[in-house]
Amino acid sequence: MRMVDLIEKKRDGKILTKEEIDFIIAGYTNEEIPDYQMSALLMAIFYQDMTDEEITNLTLAMAHSGDIIDLSSIEGIKVDKHSTGGVGDTTTLVLAPLVASVGVPVAKMSGRGLGFTGGTLDKFESIPGFRIELSDQEFIDIVNKSQVAVIGQSGNLAPADKKLYALRDVTGTVDSIPLIASSIMSKKIAAGADAIVLDVTTGEGAFMKNLDDAKRLAHTMVRIGKLAGRQTMAVISDMSEPLGEAVGNGLEIVEAIEALQGKGPEDLMEMCYVLGSQMVVLAGKAESLDDARVMLKEALESGKALEKFREMVQDQGGDASVIDQPEKLITATYQFDLPAKESGYVTEIVANEIGIAAMLLGAGRRTKEDDIDHAVGIKLKKKVGDAVKEGEALLTIYSNTEDTSAVEQLLYENISIGDNSLEPTLIHGIITE
Amino acid sequence: MRMVDLIEKKRDGKILTKEEIDFIIAGYTNEEIPDYQMSALLMAIFYQDMTDEEITNLTLAMAHSGDIIDLSSIEGIKVDKHSTGGVGDTTTLVLAPLVASVGVPVAKMSGRGLGFTGGTLDKFESIPGFRIELSDQEFIDIVNKSQVAVIGQSGNLAPADKKLYALRDVTGTVDSIPLIASSIMSKKIAAGADAIVLDVTTGEGAFMKNLDDAKRLAHTMVRIGKLAGRQTMAVISDMSEPLGEAVGNGLEIVEAIEALQGKGPEDLMEMCYVLGSQMVVLAGKAESLDDARVMLKEALESGKALEKFREMVQDQGGDASVIDQPEKLITATYQFDLPAKESGYVTEIVANEIGIAAMLLGAGRRTKEDDIDHAVGIKLKKKVGDAVKEGEALLTIYSNTEDTSAVEQLLYENISIGDNSLEPTLIHGIITE
Repeated sequence: MRMVDLIEKKRDGKILTKEEIDFIIAGYTNEEIPDYQMSALLMAIFYQDMTDEEITNLTLAMAHSGDIIDLSSIEGIKVDKHSTGGVGDTTTLVLAPLVASVGVPVAKMSGRGLGFTGGTLDKFESIPGFRIELSDQEFIDIVNKSQVAVIGQSGNLAPADKKLYALRDVTGTVDSIPLIASSIMSKKIAAGADAIVLDVTTGEGAFMKNLDDAKRLAHTMVRIGKLAGRQTMAVISDMSEPLGEAVGNGLEIVEAIEALQGKGPEDLMEMCYVLGSQMVVLAGKAESLDDARVMLKEALESGKALEKFREMVQDQGGDASVIDQPEKLITATYQFDLPAKESGYVTEIVANEIGIAAMLLGAGRRTKEDDIDHAVGIKLKKKVGDAVKEGEALLTIYSNTEDTSAVEQLLYENISIGDNSLEPTLIHGIITE
Repeated sequence: MRMVDLIEKKRDGKILTKEEIDFIIAGYTNEEIPDYQMSALLMAIFYQDMTDEEITNLTLAMAHSGDIIDLSSIEGIKVDKHSTGGVGDTTTLVLAPLVASVGVPVAKMSGRGLGFTGGTLDKFESIPGFRIELSDQEFIDIVNKSQVAVIGQSGNLAPADKKLYALRDVTGTVDSIPLIASSIMSKKIAAGADAIVLDVTTGEGAFMKNLDDAKRLAHTMVRIGKLAGRQTMAVISDMSEPLGEAVGNGLEIVEAIEALQGKGPEDLMEMCYVLGSQMVVLAGKAESLDDARVMLKEALESGKALEKFREMVQDQGGDASVIDQPEKLITATYQFDLPAKESGYVTEIVANEIGIAAMLLGAGRRTKEDDIDHAVGIKLKKKVGDAVKEGEALLTIYSNTEDTSAVEQLLYENISIGDNSLEPTLIHGIITE
């Protein structure tokens, strides 16, 4: 088999076999196939697309290019959750203890963030003492004991995907549904999940800017998940404005604690119930999404979910006192309110620009080497649809630098106030096939 | 300027500016742009095509990536000729002295062959003593004295094209009209030509298998030649069966000598008159193609063209006695006739397979390092349309190995005999814009 023949085959719109895809990924992983051939193939895939079967084979080949995490010593159906990314997305922080509190084992590997705000790991590390580096055995023991643990991603998880992702980034082949779908799903499968719940975001703050692309990506991932033997469901959710109110690592932990106390923002709670219900159903703990939602509401209202969060923080060495005194996490030197310049209704809060504002404050990384400031960020006081009066605070800026004029300007440019109250759509669809 | 942005621009069907193309070619030549980005761009060009202006800018950027040969000290309009390749293509051997004999300066740089049969240089080297390595000054002096010289291609001619060609070969991006056109034209422009005549071959033995592609390539090259300030014409010629009768280096020199003696095969002579007329017109030595053809016929019939060939061989140190005794060049140990297995008319002689048969005998190279056997090859005794009787010779094999059974089998498989006499088309069109 010669790589050049396979490039030409895909270039001409033909379908690559499993053997051919295995040959490509194995050869690329062990550096027998050079980057310049792979990038030509990636561009051909960009134009010619792939069938579900091809994407599934690609996903499995990438998943098997490195370690496959063995979670079989954890009892029950392990359900993983993945979001295609957003701004102020606190769902994982709430979901992990919430679904664990109804008996769904959550053995979660998460990543750090690059750009915008931090990743789930960065957020958990806002809690003093919280350790995300556990040994495999510690990880498994904790999940078996408490149903929940979150750790950093293993070094050798889907190395083919890591190489491919870096290559796509510099060769104009990022925006390709088969390549995006296989990249996400290969990591989920390698991380040992039995079932997968996907949050495919759409809108200005999301990777998929338009709804049709988001739907296609969601359908593709659900189908290839099933073809790969993993029950998979997806939610298409809106990321035009940030989710919830907090954008920033420590601030989002505070928001998660408040959510688990039953005081979370409406949109964040809805996302947690929608995604959580899917996780509960796929784990076999409820018959229907409606039943699952009732279970989750009960767990939250009874305080079980909050207690699970406390247990999780303690298990991973964190200071659980922050749960009773979340204000301990609000340590930024300066807090400024941003007053509205006119009265009316908030019509737009451009999510990605709010993410960039938070990053400029220090909440995100521009390069892998950057340090994150866990204290800084933004807390929205108004969301799209809310009425606001001139001079009333739109949001609070949490900063460790006194001069935030550039950030303020960026924020003003990306929050619109108009005459009519809009009702934003949070969930654009549930995809089960 | 970032390469990834330019890849995405072309990927999305937009037009690259001259500045962008210059940035790409300069960066690629000096290795600031890596192969993996270039191959992604090449694949995007494969799908999105380029405008004439883009191809012209690409051609000029590649031409200027290395040395531009300065032929200004040679008087007159220097006309170069290029063929997109064929089997048994003896035209350059005949054309160079023929058009020089009517006063057109021929300062030709040629290449060696890879695959199939040898290149023009390999053919000339069949003449004992013939030197293709001349100093620049020797080359210019000879052309000024005798109007004709043929030398090997300089080392640093269009290095960007050399790199790109090697990359295209392994990334499935060879079959792209803008990339083929710019590759050919960049070398011709760098080689110092004032005007260019192109022989775009089509059919089984050619790079362009179908006529429409050949026409598109020819039109593209003529237009970009003109945009680059070089008068350019093209002929679309058929390469379904080999051109002329001889396939093999020494054998083709013999055929060229016979052609200059007025005894050449009809199709070869026609090609030489068609291409030669264009060269004469572009050099400003005749008003019309018809006038040019009359001049060339006279030069051939009067013996002037043959004398020019003798002068050329002597100037380059070759043994000119072969011109009077061409049989000296027929030195293969074995000569076998291949008898027809049935009576009828020859309906097909698959050019590329005849080329492979000659290569198997030793007339071509499988790899750059292979030596060529100048003595071996094939001489067709029947061409498409000819009647043949069972047992009559279809061709003669010239071999230095006694067992030629594999070659014979390949030849039989690729020569068809049927009931009807076909009249093959040699010239599919003349392209002047």
